[in-house]
Amino acid sequence: MAYYVGVDLGATNLRAVVGNDRADILARAETATPRTAGIAITEAVLRVVREACATVGVDPADATAAGVASIGPLDLAEGAIDGPANLPDIGRVPLVGPLSELLDTEQVHLHNDTIAGVIGERFHSDRNPDDMAYVTISSGLGAGVCVDGHVLSGWDGNAGEVGHMVVDPDGAMTCGCGRDGHWEAYCSGNNIPEYAKYLADAEGVPTDMPVGAPDFSAVDVFEAHGADPLADHVVDRVADWNVIGFTNLANAYAPLVVRVGGAVALNNPGLILDPVRERLEETTFVNVPDVRITDMGDDVVVKGALASAITGGTGERTA
Amino acid sequence: MAYYVGVDLGATNLRAVVGNDRADILARAETATPRTAGIAITEAVLRVVREACATVGVDPADATAAGVASIGPLDLAEGAIDGPANLPDIGRVPLVGPLSELLDTEQVHLHNDTIAGVIGERFHSDRNPDDMAYVTISSGLGAGVCVDGHVLSGWDGNAGEVGHMVVDPDGAMTCGCGRDGHWEAYCSGNNIPEYAKYLADAEGVPTDMPVGAPDFSAVDVFEAHGADPLADHVVDRVADWNVIGFTNLANAYAPLVVRVGGAVALNNPGLILDPVRERLEETTFVNVPDVRITDMGDDVVVKGALASAITGGTGERTA
Repeated sequence: MAYYVGVDLGATNLRAVVGNDRADILARAETATPRTAGIAITEAVLRVVREACATVGVDPADATAAGVASIGPLDLAEGAIDGPANLPDIGRVPLVGPLSELLDTEQVHLHNDTIAGVIGERFHSDRNPDDMAYVTISSGLGAGVCVDGHVLSGWDGNAGEVGHMVVDPDGAMTCGCGRDGHWEAYCSGNNIPEYAKYLADAEGVPTDMPVGAPDFSAVDVFEAHGADPLADHVVDRVADWNVIGFTNLANAYAPLVVRVGGAVALNNPGLILDPVRERLEETTFVNVPDVRITDMGDDVVVKGALASAITGGTGERTA
Repeated sequence: MAYYVGVDLGATNLRAVVGNDRADILARAETATPRTAGIAITEAVLRVVREACATVGVDPADATAAGVASIGPLDLAEGAIDGPANLPDIGRVPLVGPLSELLDTEQVHLHNDTIAGVIGERFHSDRNPDDMAYVTISSGLGAGVCVDGHVLSGWDGNAGEVGHMVVDPDGAMTCGCGRDGHWEAYCSGNNIPEYAKYLADAEGVPTDMPVGAPDFSAVDVFEAHGADPLADHVVDRVADWNVIGFTNLANAYAPLVVRVGGAVALNNPGLILDPVRERLEETTFVNVPDVRITDMGDDVVVKGALASAITGGTGERTA
């Protein structure tokens, strides 16, 4: 029996799974992503992979291949993260080299988490579609895209950085990357609290939410929706920016299917996606894609990493 | 000797070339694109191809393959244009079937004009790059994109419709496609006159240009630049939208190289591209691409069509 390893390295959590060639998950291991140094992250990755393998009594060196889904930006040539945008001061995080050594295989596929997402969505989708996208709305915001059956990577793995598309020419909000007006700066979990503060200050919308408090979060905004004028306004404005973002994604890649994951979307599917579904027809020049929440929930990225290991990075099922 | 046919079917002009396998152009023919009916366009395409073949004494049935670069949107499954956005009331224009019959080959590759552009740029570029884009700023605005050596098509040939990305959330201008706020609605040759009128009316910028006159054109605006306050303002605002458009293109596809053609860009390379080159660094998350005017001028699309015929639609040179 062939064993495959999937790793989901997020800004907050780190997971590994071991699966068979039908992508059944046989074992899992999980830990919090270290925030101290690049090498600590590398070591934690090796540890959870060893742990998952140990659970099913598999020698890591017997794994056939691995897929790694990671926060970006990636340096594919070096098989490393090149200073993650959402973990400042971490520097370089080597991944492919150490994993290849542990698993004794050259078959280690490294992707952005979103690219792994689209590989997983493609693999697990009934019709194994050639033209689709996976969008995550989580602490950050990004997409993985498959066009003509080809999963877009880009020379350094950074194709599909749609979260850094400019949606607001006035550039009211500054993105985690330091630039103004990016989609992610308005609609991702890390940025919604700051955007709520901006709207409260700039437009004087009344609120009972603890706007500006250190622990004020996107969760507070969505929980207060329907009961707080500012929360309602933030959710409406986030919807406006999401409509533009999904429009631009549709026009850029012409996907037939778009699946959406990430905590912000998974926890608020109606508030986040209903406006997009309702308004995309008005704004999109190409075929309007079928936009829906992923069926795989929180597991989409690690399942994508596993599907990448099985399919050699394509998500294309063989008959 | 093998002969190849390239066709550039634009909204205004229709050209055909015959070339050899090194993409040397041996003959050309050209006509105005009919604006009466779809079938008239089909017939004009067959006529210019016959004419170009006749010039070098080649029987059309001896051609090895053809590439057709066409205004969109395309119906690739049917090998036709499906109601060109810039030629209202034309309806369907069959292309692949009639050309296959004339040339007695199944090898007829149909692309958007911009996709042909990137195939040509790739083929004729020194390093035959895997990650690049071709942008046309002409009567319309769009892109053809190659990622990881794969020229993006999309199931219906409409990947890369970047001109229909929303750049202005206020949607002040309406695009030729009927939707608001699209990049093309501000920066393409067909739309700049209307945008100038909008800026004159909305912001009261003084001008000596015949704004609103039936023959007022984008050429008038660029010619008056430096001597007319409105012309200066329009050129500045067009630059702002172009910076957003090129930023979004860079973040979507992560190209290393972007080449730009189309009459608006070719006739005003400094005014159009200098601001983009100067400001892309500030706004782009991924590698900042090398953005330059195409070396092939007006010929880029027909040369792309010919390169598509030679390379089977990839632009990838074999050694």
